[in-house]
Amino acid sequence: MISINLAKQIIFQKTRLIKGVEREGFLQAQGRVLAQDIRTTTDLPAFNRATVDGFAVKSVDLKAQSAKFPKLLKIIGVAEAGCPSKKIIGKGQAIKIMTGGVVPKGADCVAMKEYCRQKGNEVFVGQAVRKGEGIAFKGEDAHKNSLIIEKGNLVTPAIVGLCATLGLPFVKVFGRPKTAILVTGNELLNVTQKLSSGKIRSSNQYSLFTQVKESGGAPILLGIARDDRRALITKIKSGFECDILLISGGVSVGDCDLVPSVLRTLGAKIFFHKVAVQPGKPLLFAKKNKTLIFGLPGNPVSTMVSFHEFVRPCILKMSGRRDFLTKTATAILAEEIKLNPARTKILRGKTLLREGELFVKLSEHQGSGNIISVVKADCLFKVPEGVRKVVKGRKVVVEYLS
Amino acid sequence: MISINLAKQIIFQKTRLIKGVEREGFLQAQGRVLAQDIRTTTDLPAFNRATVDGFAVKSVDLKAQSAKFPKLLKIIGVAEAGCPSKKIIGKGQAIKIMTGGVVPKGADCVAMKEYCRQKGNEVFVGQAVRKGEGIAFKGEDAHKNSLIIEKGNLVTPAIVGLCATLGLPFVKVFGRPKTAILVTGNELLNVTQKLSSGKIRSSNQYSLFTQVKESGGAPILLGIARDDRRALITKIKSGFECDILLISGGVSVGDCDLVPSVLRTLGAKIFFHKVAVQPGKPLLFAKKNKTLIFGLPGNPVSTMVSFHEFVRPCILKMSGRRDFLTKTATAILAEEIKLNPARTKILRGKTLLREGELFVKLSEHQGSGNIISVVKADCLFKVPEGVRKVVKGRKVVVEYLS
Repeated sequence: MISINLAKQIIFQKTRLIKGVEREGFLQAQGRVLAQDIRTTTDLPAFNRATVDGFAVKSVDLKAQSAKFPKLLKIIGVAEAGCPSKKIIGKGQAIKIMTGGVVPKGADCVAMKEYCRQKGNEVFVGQAVRKGEGIAFKGEDAHKNSLIIEKGNLVTPAIVGLCATLGLPFVKVFGRPKTAILVTGNELLNVTQKLSSGKIRSSNQYSLFTQVKESGGAPILLGIARDDRRALITKIKSGFECDILLISGGVSVGDCDLVPSVLRTLGAKIFFHKVAVQPGKPLLFAKKNKTLIFGLPGNPVSTMVSFHEFVRPCILKMSGRRDFLTKTATAILAEEIKLNPARTKILRGKTLLREGELFVKLSEHQGSGNIISVVKADCLFKVPEGVRKVVKGRKVVVEYLS
Repeated sequence: MISINLAKQIIFQKTRLIKGVEREGFLQAQGRVLAQDIRTTTDLPAFNRATVDGFAVKSVDLKAQSAKFPKLLKIIGVAEAGCPSKKIIGKGQAIKIMTGGVVPKGADCVAMKEYCRQKGNEVFVGQAVRKGEGIAFKGEDAHKNSLIIEKGNLVTPAIVGLCATLGLPFVKVFGRPKTAILVTGNELLNVTQKLSSGKIRSSNQYSLFTQVKESGGAPILLGIARDDRRALITKIKSGFECDILLISGGVSVGDCDLVPSVLRTLGAKIFFHKVAVQPGKPLLFAKKNKTLIFGLPGNPVSTMVSFHEFVRPCILKMSGRRDFLTKTATAILAEEIKLNPARTKILRGKTLLREGELFVKLSEHQGSGNIISVVKADCLFKVPEGVRKVVKGRKVVVEYLS
């Protein structure tokens, strides 16, 4: 039995970046992982841009020390957004300008409309304006060919907007790791089947399917395999065509737990089997050719938690992501927790923001079989081995789910 | 100019739940909002289930006080998962059982395989086992017809798994609010067009499209309208067929800012125009028949931030969501921030987890025009009006993006 950290290290070390990069429309690329850096194609802004509606003027005309307010200026033109004025502003002159307009030559500031009163061809400016006020200068945010965002980042709405701004209709993104999902067990029924004695409906394939999707992988359902070497061999072999194979159930110590032995028969190399964590102790990690194989405990809670802890970071690394963390927060424990200190615990929590402080409490009773504890949770948090009690008020680091 | 809180109150008050509920396959329902409560269809677990591999026995045979260890028991049958044994356990007897198997009649605990040594038809149990050990009892997690999760919750992987467990191939979900997106401005070019003097490429329609998707709405692009009453009237009218209409640009005080007057002409009721927030001051909120209308400032940063602050909660409420918060965290400010105290500020931040503490710093210079500040941000946080400085080390509440 190895530690959770060693298990994660081994998984990371064996996880290679997926081969193959796709060219995707910038809008369709939302939620994918950038396989290219994005650099500016022009200065940003590309021209001296008015950031307010008002009048482009010379600041020397509107100095606090020398000018008398309201100061009268002559309007010599208009600069709307998209329709620059070609006139050059001289002393005592102004050009009416809209937000987003090109600041005309000769002007070095824009007096906000709120300070101005227009009368025919003239404008009274009511107060002093400093040089640079009301202008975003060419290249102020970034010069041409600046690196804005590195490959490995998730394509967010802001990056989609950036691509449009820069005129990039296509971006390169990493492929999605093909992730086969196999569930095993003689007790498993399909969703539409009636329960009969000792049977349960298969749920892990579906929770895993949706977890894989959330993590950016491409899930493939291989269905249910009976606890029978032949059935397992056929199904597992078909999973070897994928980048990752998830097998739920059949990895523990019971007589029906055939997965480790079948994997060995098929020539897979097993790196570890059993991790000092609860839930999730029977976790197995193996490899056959290029396929990484996770044997996950069959219990629904263990499967989901093990996925989050061990498989999700693997999919993210394989997808080219720079950052494997989910969104984290520090939260104050809202109740005392008593624990069996034998293994690292991964607990299911529910956060609550109250008066600017984030609290967390257990989502339900934390029995490994209680799927309701995951349904009602919005986060997971860990308590290390050896701890029998965590007092109320203690700070813990939570990782958000979904 | 009204406060950010009053603006949000008014929006909330005018936001009605979307009409129409859809019946969706449980797997396809991922990311949708439940329009029904989910109740258990059986007890959970549905039978007394072994939680370990081992031997189902009578605890009276294995009492710490009376039994001599190893204690020899006679194996009278096998209970695999999915294949219950019909035998009844008597004193001195055991039935071999696998995790997930039905605990046979007469047994009141399961001795873990790790404590046992099987020899033919007999088993030596090495240590005491307490009543109830190794068993998840029928109905222990929930009784039949218990409310597990209320309508208004997002369908997560755990809920997908729960639906499978309960045998619910379909679930009712709320419709997605149809959200039309119109961008305005003579300066706007398409993504593939070359920049010419004073022009910029339209990006807001795409960042909004992806933000609407992320929030669970159904985005519809209406394209670019020139700053011209006729063009605006036609486009805005077509937006009135949707639940929500987002108009980016044209809401400020410039001569080309025709949106408020066009909305009035078209009979829309304007509830407010201008909010004491930066970025996002020109925000306008109106209604025409059933369509809620947001006039968003044209600046890319303002548009995205205003969407997050004002439009996203509206879409969530309309979609039936119980909870409008994004994932939040308290974070320690990693740098001093100086501010113009005139309005509430919404700052773009980047979080960093270091030694169990979450820190946040500004993502870039926070000029309202600097889209890079949003591209590099993973969260937003607010500083109230009247604050000139926030010192390093102060705690702030951040809301995660994407």
